[in-house]
Amino acid sequence: MAIRAGIMGATGYSALELLRYLLRHPEVEIAVLTSRQEGNPHIAAVHPSLAGRLDLCCENLEPEAVAARCDVVFCCLPHGVTAQVVPRLLEAGARVVDLSADFRLKNAEVYRQWYGKEHQAPQLLPQAVYGLPELYREPIRSTRLVANPGCYPTSAILALAPLLKRGAIRPEGIIVDSKSGVSGAGRQPKLTTLYPECNESVSAYNVGRHRHTPEIEQVLSEAAGGAVEVVFTPHLIPMDRGILSTVYAQPQGQASEEELLELLREFYRPHPFVRVVEHLPATKDTAGTNFCDLTVRVVRGRVLGISCLDNLGKGAAGAAVQNMNLMFGLEETTALL
Amino acid sequence: MAIRAGIMGATGYSALELLRYLLRHPEVEIAVLTSRQEGNPHIAAVHPSLAGRLDLCCENLEPEAVAARCDVVFCCLPHGVTAQVVPRLLEAGARVVDLSADFRLKNAEVYRQWYGKEHQAPQLLPQAVYGLPELYREPIRSTRLVANPGCYPTSAILALAPLLKRGAIRPEGIIVDSKSGVSGAGRQPKLTTLYPECNESVSAYNVGRHRHTPEIEQVLSEAAGGAVEVVFTPHLIPMDRGILSTVYAQPQGQASEEELLELLREFYRPHPFVRVVEHLPATKDTAGTNFCDLTVRVVRGRVLGISCLDNLGKGAAGAAVQNMNLMFGLEETTALL
Amino acid sequence: MAIRAGIMGATGYSALELLRYLLRHPEVEIAVLTSRQEGNPHIAAVHPSLAGRLDLCCENLEPEAVAARCDVVFCCLPHGVTAQVVPRLLEAGARVVDLSADFRLKNAEVYRQWYGKEHQAPQLLPQAVYGLPELYREPIRSTRLVANPGCYPTSAILALAPLLKRGAIRPEGIIVDSKSGVSGAGRQPKLTTLYPECNESVSAYNVGRHRHTPEIEQVLSEAAGGAVEVVFTPHLIPMDRGILSTVYAQPQGQASEEELLELLREFYRPHPFVRVVEHLPATKDTAGTNFCDLTVRVVRGRVLGISCLDNLGKGAAGAAVQNMNLMFGLEETTALL
Amino acid sequence: MAIRAGIMGATGYSALELLRYLLRHPEVEIAVLTSRQEGNPHIAAVHPSLAGRLDLCCENLEPEAVAARCDVVFCCLPHGVTAQVVPRLLEAGARVVDLSADFRLKNAEVYRQWYGKEHQAPQLLPQAVYGLPELYREPIRSTRLVANPGCYPTSAILALAPLLKRGAIRPEGIIVDSKSGVSGAGRQPKLTTLYPECNESVSAYNVGRHRHTPEIEQVLSEAAGGAVEVVFTPHLIPMDRGILSTVYAQPQGQASEEELLELLREFYRPHPFVRVVEHLPATKDTAGTNFCDLTVRVVRGRVLGISCLDNLGKGAAGAAVQNMNLMFGLEETTALL
Repeated sequence: MAIRAGIMGATGYSALELLRYLLRHPEVEIAVLTSRQEGNPHIAAVHPSLAGRLDLCCENLEPEAVAARCDVVFCCLPHGVTAQVVPRLLEAGARVVDLSADFRLKNAEVYRQWYGKEHQAPQLLPQAVYGLPELYREPIRSTRLVANPGCYPTSAILALAPLLKRGAIRPEGIIVDSKSGVSGAGRQPKLTTLYPECNESVSAYNVGRHRHTPEIEQVLSEAAGGAVEVVFTPHLIPMDRGILSTVYAQPQGQASEEELLELLREFYRPHPFVRVVEHLPATKDTAGTNFCDLTVRVVRGRVLGISCLDNLGKGAAGAAVQNMNLMFGLEETTALL
Repeated sequence: MAIRAGIMGATGYSALELLRYLLRHPEVEIAVLTSRQEGNPHIAAVHPSLAGRLDLCCENLEPEAVAARCDVVFCCLPHGVTAQVVPRLLEAGARVVDLSADFRLKNAEVYRQWYGKEHQAPQLLPQAVYGLPELYREPIRSTRLVANPGCYPTSAILALAPLLKRGAIRPEGIIVDSKSGVSGAGRQPKLTTLYPECNESVSAYNVGRHRHTPEIEQVLSEAAGGAVEVVFTPHLIPMDRGILSTVYAQPQGQASEEELLELLREFYRPHPFVRVVEHLPATKDTAGTNFCDLTVRVVRGRVLGISCLDNLGKGAAGAAVQNMNLMFGLEETTALL
Repeated sequence: MAIRAGIMGATGYSALELLRYLLRHPEVEIAVLTSRQEGNPHIAAVHPSLAGRLDLCCENLEPEAVAARCDVVFCCLPHGVTAQVVPRLLEAGARVVDLSADFRLKNAEVYRQWYGKEHQAPQLLPQAVYGLPELYREPIRSTRLVANPGCYPTSAILALAPLLKRGAIRPEGIIVDSKSGVSGAGRQPKLTTLYPECNESVSAYNVGRHRHTPEIEQVLSEAAGGAVEVVFTPHLIPMDRGILSTVYAQPQGQASEEELLELLREFYRPHPFVRVVEHLPATKDTAGTNFCDLTVRVVRGRVLGISCLDNLGKGAAGAAVQNMNLMFGLEETTALL
Repeated sequence: MAIRAGIMGATGYSALELLRYLLRHPEVEIAVLTSRQEGNPHIAAVHPSLAGRLDLCCENLEPEAVAARCDVVFCCLPHGVTAQVVPRLLEAGARVVDLSADFRLKNAEVYRQWYGKEHQAPQLLPQAVYGLPELYREPIRSTRLVANPGCYPTSAILALAPLLKRGAIRPEGIIVDSKSGVSGAGRQPKLTTLYPECNESVSAYNVGRHRHTPEIEQVLSEAAGGAVEVVFTPHLIPMDRGILSTVYAQPQGQASEEELLELLREFYRPHPFVRVVEHLPATKDTAGTNFCDLTVRVVRGRVLGISCLDNLGKGAAGAAVQNMNLMFGLEETTALL
């Protein structure tokens, strides 16, 4: 019996990438797609690359109607909206992998500060599991609600969490300088992501106030066993997909570069999608995959980590499928290699 | 006494390129900028690259108010709107270089067919001069209304008009296959020109119904002294600026490749901005300039022309300044080299 | 028992794409990789994206040594070299899918004219099958030597062959205007494909003398049942991968656009990798896939076809796997969806 | 009387940009171009964008022969070679703006450590002036040898030097995270800058050992009046030109963001090519110009500076012309606006 999967909000880039993965998944049947676009457009009209691959229309459905036809629902809806939808999906019996930010933060007050609105389902926050299998694989296996991580947080956390957990770096003064492709900004037309605006250009944006900041800090604090604050600076890069995060931290103790590499290798040995490499990785090496490539250097007494991933892969849709695999007791890598 | 210049519709890419040229022009003072954006934004807020270069705000003004402060007005308004504005500018005493399509077609009925609306100022069509100095330099010198050519037409016409004029190619069966950068589609956010949609992709658009078709045909027919029909296929290329047109025609007579090259060289000798080259030109060679690079080949009995230009340069703002120079009796190349 | 596959010349882009497909292929074991690079580099040192995916080194081996360990060999060697290697692979018992040009042309004299050297294995030309399953599926099933088509020819032939076969267009005066991403030019560093040279630029190259011309003409002539000549103009586009070919032909008879579309739909119904679409396709819709998206228009009495594919997918590695599937009696789509 | 200018090493990207600026310079005559390419190629064969602009061939000349025909020589030669050429140019009477690294470091021993060879003209190091007019305008006016700064150092120093000079940040723990377009890597074909390798990808390179590190530290130490060490991480970005440096430092004292902005504004008031802006600048705003756009933020108690420039403009050729203007007593902005 195939797992019946639905996608709510099927018109964006993460949803398209999800569909690419799910079409290859031997245990999944894509059962429902939703969108609020008028006229129930065929999915191939929305995403022409799916012509001949999937014969489904995007319906404008209530969560209960979706849940009735699905075992698992991937939520690709805007934050705020999502918190209203997810309780209804869960109550109606579906499991949920939520790609929005609504269930990532444990503290509804922090949510309010950063997202500027009251959380609509704070009662679910305790049971939502942060969907980073490299840190939370066991809880993911048994939850019915996974909060799929943000793309920037995944890149930052995978580089820093092991070093904090093992006490190799100090928890204060951490800098995360991230470079992201444009697909991370979504598929809504706006001036900043119009081709002639962002092509042939680099810029920083949302400096000091990007909403992924509290998410990074929450997970790193948990890893460190104490408060971690980061300076997080996202930059927009003229490419479709890919995130490279360069992280800077102060060492704690005297570990050499080789020892830090070995620490990372040992930490990620049981995890098939993090590749600790000796060379300096490029985002292109991970494009279209669920891998995160990672290395570490010691420069002038500072620890410098570099991580690369595909913001639509390990940073979104790939991770979502990885989480689904775990939730349903499947091999973690199914459809992802 | 400086020429006082105004730009109506100062927020787009052509207007920005115009400003770059005009800021270098020794005889011009930029006097007025207009836009319908609320709050009279400073031009450097609209175009950050102009910070410190020009201390003007975009005003929401009537044409008469603009004309009162200008000797020449560059109209960068949408077609349709323009035809209503230009008569008022002319009556108020300004000369006009219009970058819209409204005064390019001589026949108001053809305009109606292709633009889907009645022309609002057909009485001005006889006096408007098509702003291609390589064909109409003398009339441009003495007109008060120049219809600045479209970017595609300029590239197609410069490649084909001399060959038609001299009878080297036949007037029927001409194909114009054009490749354009994305800035040609304007600065209004829309899905088709969103970065992740058009990056890493090529596609044709408006096949058989692009509005530059009648403009190309009108000017080529005049050059040929008889009706010319073209198949015109525009393609969107993932780059900011540049148009390359590959044109295919049937020879008339037995001219060799070298003779055709010489025909072009001789035709363009008095024209400083068309460079007839022997190599295969690249759009990059003309980026940021007012040049059109041009060559011709004979392949299997077919004449093949290739022309390159910057759609914002010779395809829009550069040509506009070239036209203004001619209208005001200045050296044609002023501010353009 | 898995099919043991080898790749000779494993360091280029086509080989990397082949490896991506083969790693997903349930019936294939990648057995041998060759390269003439010194020191037998690990494949992940050559292609970092394969880190952790494939633990093989590139060996410098004689064809017989390769054949001894393989059931099928994919040849990604330069033309000229290939013609010397393939006879030895066949004699040693391997089947061969050759991605070079050496066995595509049926006539050794035509080869000599276009490639400037004598063919080194003309005796094999009669038995080599042109690897376009949409035209030659049955012969591919039973041959031991497939000449995998060039990327441009595939895009041109798929658009034109059905129209010629059914007599809908005339065999003379055909124009193929093609636009290709840069990966088609290979992985050898050279000035023309250096990033700052070809980025933000379009240019035509090898006009009138590109070596894919006789290949296109040979296959189209076979389809038309008589000599077909084409004017073929390749252009370099600033993107990694993708080919869009715009083809122009004169109609024969009175078929409407809708009838031509239906002709194509009917022709390709048994072929899973050609999608006849009504919209204007973009190369991005086929990126990373083995699909060719195709449409047709009638413009001013001319038939205009547009085809899109991934030059490394349907234009090279995808087609190679499709051919291998047929040669080994597997489902044609295995590993390709 | 025009200033006669020569360029040694005229085939690269910096030289092309220099030529673009010099062609617009009212006081300069381009007198000599050199290259070691065989056959004295015409400059338009090397740089097709110069067709019709400059009728000079690249000659293979000794420094004395160059100096005999020039008042100023721009050296665009590789480091190492340059140190041998410059003494001969100076002795023969020319003034020199050197775009290589050979005369930037004051200490020949530091040069030996970072460049791996003995300096060939250490006797000139005391008289060479670091060509950053924002810090060394008066010495530039009176020297005969300017060491034009590296592109990364200019971006880092302009952001940090004023803050160090005024004691607003601490001299230790400074991080410079830089993002550069590909033209900075030069015009020699190599795998790392081949289009399909670096397009659609970001990577860090030369981490902890980029040769611009000691140059940054030397100038910042002079500004701080004490040793400054930086962690400098360059990244390669898929665009032609532009550098954005994000710098992180610890505050010294309690200056607010607004006070730091005012400090920068006040510092750069006399300097026409540094624009202190309130928004987050993009490299595109400075493309093709000699401007550096700069801002500062305070994030979680850390001072964060962001600077943008064109690596071929203010990072190379623009700065070289600015320096030449100062050396010859011309208006600093001539040909640069």
